Amino acid sequence: MKLTLYHYWRSSSSWRVRLALFYKNTACELVTVNLLAGEQKNPEHLARNPMGFVPVLKVEQPDGKIHHLGESIAIMEFLDEVSVQKSLLPQDPFDRAFVRQLVQIINSGIQPLHNLKVLNAAATDDAGKKKWAQIWIRDGLQAYETLILKTAKQFSFGDKVTMADLCLIPQIYTANRYQLDLAPYPTLCRVHDELTKLDWVKQAHADQFAP
Amino acid sequence: MKLTLYHYWRSSSSWRVRLALFYKNTACELVTVNLLAGEQKNPEHLARNPMGFVPVLKVEQPDGKIHHLGESIAIMEFLDEVSVQKSLLPQDPFDRAFVRQLVQIINSGIQPLHNLKVLNAAATDDAGKKKWAQIWIRDGLQAYETLILKTAKQFSFGDKVTMADLCLIPQIYTANRYQLDLAPYPTLCRVHDELTKLDWVKQAHADQFAP
Repeated sequence: MKLTLYHYWRSSSSWRVRLALFYKNTACELVTVNLLAGEQKNPEHLARNPMGFVPVLKVEQPDGKIHHLGESIAIMEFLDEVSVQKSLLPQDPFDRAFVRQLVQIINSGIQPLHNLKVLNAAATDDAGKKKWAQIWIRDGLQAYETLILKTAKQFSFGDKVTMADLCLIPQIYTANRYQLDLAPYPTLCRVHDELTKLDWVKQAHADQFAP
Repeated sequence: MKLTLYHYWRSSSSWRVRLALFYKNTACELVTVNLLAGEQKNPEHLARNPMGFVPVLKVEQPDGKIHHLGESIAIMEFLDEVSVQKSLLPQDPFDRAFVRQLVQIINSGIQPLHNLKVLNAAATDDAGKKKWAQIWIRDGLQAYETLILKTAKQFSFGDKVTMADLCLIPQIYTANRYQLDLAPYPTLCRVHDELTKLDWVKQAHADQFAP
């Protein structure tokens, strides 16, 4: 299978999928969709994903069949199903549910509330946008912190990287971007510090793909 | 395993899980958390889910071990993993990714933007709330409609119920609640009509649990 990821350097959903690809050491061409230039609204991108979002993973099968997969969590689940080495989920159904809960705290509880188009609808100036983003990031990270108190070792769930960690990395970047005080979340900050030491995490970092 | 679902009648995320339970014919006690009375902020509910959201699925194992699972999608994936009959996802990895994309269009693309606390932060009066909710429901349903043009038969993905259908049902209810014109989405309206004929869909309907 030939993979192409349509992404944007600072899009946190794109970043999650870059992390999954780099962690699994999966070959993939990366193509930028410039959100600030509005390229996500071009007809060719809307044909890939009618939501006009990044990331989109294009998969070309050996028989020539082409799939465009949208939504970062759907893409990560797909990658995990077709490439079982370095699984992003634990084996036990209760543990899987727990990790997926952490994932959704970020994916549906935080990120949708500070994506570009929502932020622009919620506030007109930078101060208002920062305040709006901080509310939801604070609520979500507090819940994440509370939940991982019981499970975190090196990473959010024990000593193995999971999908939750891949969501946490760009979320912390965004929290810093909006100058949120992270002192109330020592556990997730410690996990984040551990993650940022890893080579594949460094390679997937937004700054590596900045214009 | 003994199951208890903490839910609220009109919460669309609760409704999704009720649908999954009723579709799979899984015995489960239902306990109301009254969101309008603020019960989701009570310490006993926050102990179940630090996000203060419904649904929460409490699972008591035969050995007495208790789990509280949060986030509707994580709960539905769990139910599908422990009860493989009437699977909520197709078998093929590309098809699973497609259904999960539909799920996330609603779960992260629409619903978080009109949940109670976000709606209250976004607008102060009913007209403003309606306008805000309509924007995001319209965008998401348009993308859902476009995607299922290629796949819908009786349901969103062929002739078998999937997790996407379970998310669609409460989303259409909410769209109607905010008086969104659904005429531009004939395919998903047709699928919705098919779904509403089913007994288990009727049994899980919000109105069955209204105070």
